[in-house]
Amino acid sequence: MIKDIDTLYSRIAGNMKRSAIREILKLTQQPDIISFAGGLPSPESFPVEEVKKISEKVLTEKGITALQYGTTDGCVELREQLSQKYKREGLNIDIKNILITTSSQQGLDLVGKIFINPGDKVICGLPSYLGGISSFAAYGAELIGIKFDKHGMRSDKLSETLENLKQQGIRPKFIYIIPDFQNPAGITMPEFRRREILELAYKYNVLIIEDSPYRELRFDGKPQKMIYELDNKGFVLTLGTFSKILAPGFRMGWILGNDQLIDKLIVAKQSTDLCTPAFLQLIIAEYMKQGLLEKNLINTINAYREKRDLMLKCFREMMPEGVTWTEPEGGLFLFLNLPENMDASELFHIAIEKKVAFVIGQVFHCDGSGKNTMRFNFSFASHEQIKTGISRLAEAIKDMMK
Amino acid sequence: MIKDIDTLYSRIAGNMKRSAIREILKLTQQPDIISFAGGLPSPESFPVEEVKKISEKVLTEKGITALQYGTTDGCVELREQLSQKYKREGLNIDIKNILITTSSQQGLDLVGKIFINPGDKVICGLPSYLGGISSFAAYGAELIGIKFDKHGMRSDKLSETLENLKQQGIRPKFIYIIPDFQNPAGITMPEFRRREILELAYKYNVLIIEDSPYRELRFDGKPQKMIYELDNKGFVLTLGTFSKILAPGFRMGWILGNDQLIDKLIVAKQSTDLCTPAFLQLIIAEYMKQGLLEKNLINTINAYREKRDLMLKCFREMMPEGVTWTEPEGGLFLFLNLPENMDASELFHIAIEKKVAFVIGQVFHCDGSGKNTMRFNFSFASHEQIKTGISRLAEAIKDMMK
Repeated sequence: MIKDIDTLYSRIAGNMKRSAIREILKLTQQPDIISFAGGLPSPESFPVEEVKKISEKVLTEKGITALQYGTTDGCVELREQLSQKYKREGLNIDIKNILITTSSQQGLDLVGKIFINPGDKVICGLPSYLGGISSFAAYGAELIGIKFDKHGMRSDKLSETLENLKQQGIRPKFIYIIPDFQNPAGITMPEFRRREILELAYKYNVLIIEDSPYRELRFDGKPQKMIYELDNKGFVLTLGTFSKILAPGFRMGWILGNDQLIDKLIVAKQSTDLCTPAFLQLIIAEYMKQGLLEKNLINTINAYREKRDLMLKCFREMMPEGVTWTEPEGGLFLFLNLPENMDASELFHIAIEKKVAFVIGQVFHCDGSGKNTMRFNFSFASHEQIKTGISRLAEAIKDMMK
Repeated sequence: MIKDIDTLYSRIAGNMKRSAIREILKLTQQPDIISFAGGLPSPESFPVEEVKKISEKVLTEKGITALQYGTTDGCVELREQLSQKYKREGLNIDIKNILITTSSQQGLDLVGKIFINPGDKVICGLPSYLGGISSFAAYGAELIGIKFDKHGMRSDKLSETLENLKQQGIRPKFIYIIPDFQNPAGITMPEFRRREILELAYKYNVLIIEDSPYRELRFDGKPQKMIYELDNKGFVLTLGTFSKILAPGFRMGWILGNDQLIDKLIVAKQSTDLCTPAFLQLIIAEYMKQGLLEKNLINTINAYREKRDLMLKCFREMMPEGVTWTEPEGGLFLFLNLPENMDASELFHIAIEKKVAFVIGQVFHCDGSGKNTMRFNFSFASHEQIKTGISRLAEAIKDMMK
């Protein structure tokens, strides 16, 4: 073995942590454990038969293009379909402002790559998506967490923090926001809060990274405008993905942004993977062209709504006093608060013995807070598993409270 | 627009250059230009019908797995097939020493990410693959180029350089080598040279990155052992890809390495794209299982051999005295040297006027040398285009010599 191999690794490698969630998932893969820990879409939502037909069509009509190198910005067909999707939502987005990424995670990595120098400040929610903050931390970002209220990131706290930083001569690289059905909190930011945060971004001249992987999965209530839509000054990059609305196995996402930022991201993508698989891009473009995305989403939304409702019902019926939770209007996750003095990581071990698993909320808090919180995924488990699992969990909490 | 946007970009973004080749390719996309500039495999080599059948089979038998998230290290089925491919070549490689990457370019990016701090030294060939050196330069590597002889990287020059660096207390992060049908030089390193370089790596305690995207495309002569195979101390990471032997549109590559290095790369890949598309991995695994990779390679190899032979014949018949070229035993590229006093970038403009294009060799030289060199791709153009294109080129050179 090479001597002193550890001295050869980069600072980025030193900043990288093995994903806490992926490690937890290994623990929870025993077959008799009911796991609410993962973030997997329900396999029932995968349109296998339609993908089969469309794959054949794409290979018959555009086989060579599908198997050849593509352009770094992505296939025109797919960017056109995304542009039309936004048009149906009342938004004009030119295809030159859309970059196709090999998964939304790649989008987060590219954002980290083009903006972050070691020691740079990045503002995120308390809590926030682990995959996002890990990507930024790898490039050396120092994360500053902003507390939540029921509308998501608190604008008063954000304002204080930005002002404090300004006093110290520090301009953070960006504010990282997941406005719709936030992972992990399950909270959706109302329009007024989005506007408050955007105004702060303008005032302090700071970019916003709007990460919205669950936006299309709304079960009830009215869609809120994307921050990208509210912005008229080019301060926002928005990340989207097909992972939760079509198939995560396609690893297909996109970024919306102004010309200059998209151009910088394209150059970064060139040295990262040159281009995203054209075959998969053309399948998705055809799937959208045939109107299947919206059509199949109805079934997924109905199925997820039922599961969310069932999980909330179980919580209401089974949870002891002092336990509270969020009631998300969409997405895959809800968030549960134990009484302040209880530790979710202790509960985790009791729960595993009772054959039920969740993710400890602390991992989503960049400042190490949130010890009494937990994230639950409701999209993957069956109805039966939700009932049994939450009942086991309620028992575990009651045991711990004794 | 956000104020002072340029001050928000990272040093990595500052190190990134728009790919010179991609820019040249735009110039050469006028329909009447015969271009030897790209590095595209011939579309005739794409097994469209077989991929169609196999896609259907994968979706029928493993539809859910194909469309769901996969593990970061890659599908077992594909790693098994790769392990068996190596076994047929007489090499035992456990699947835990194989990491699937979303293109070989991702492999290069991950290598840069885990090893390079700004200012670190990386040793590469003069010339060397642009996508590799760009990835490393993005992370801030300072590239040290080693001259070539007819066997590739000169071990005497490498030894000198390593000794000089050691005297200065500098340990380079790795030596970047493309041993088979090198891009751009078309040179294959014989075993004795591979061993010399490996011994130097041992002596100076430096890693080797062996990048071998064309290895399977050998037209004549005997396969040389991979440096990975010659190494028994875990000093080598080897990158492979399906881009040139199946379809670049799949963006599918792999890395071989010792347990510790593979583990580090897996953690880096988690925050880069979580996992590679399972659908495409399963298609390739089935394609290999059915023995189609080796079977179809025979046709590709025969077609490319004919094209290489034709291009060499044209060179011999048409080129003026003083022009020399490499005669590769495989791969996609050959390299041409003008007389020392001639400038290939001047020739490029004359050639474009005569409607023929190539890549200026200087872009592959990290020290700015190689002004009189040019790279030619022979896999993509038709026989007719090769004849006409090389004739136009010979005219352009003769014009310039006048």
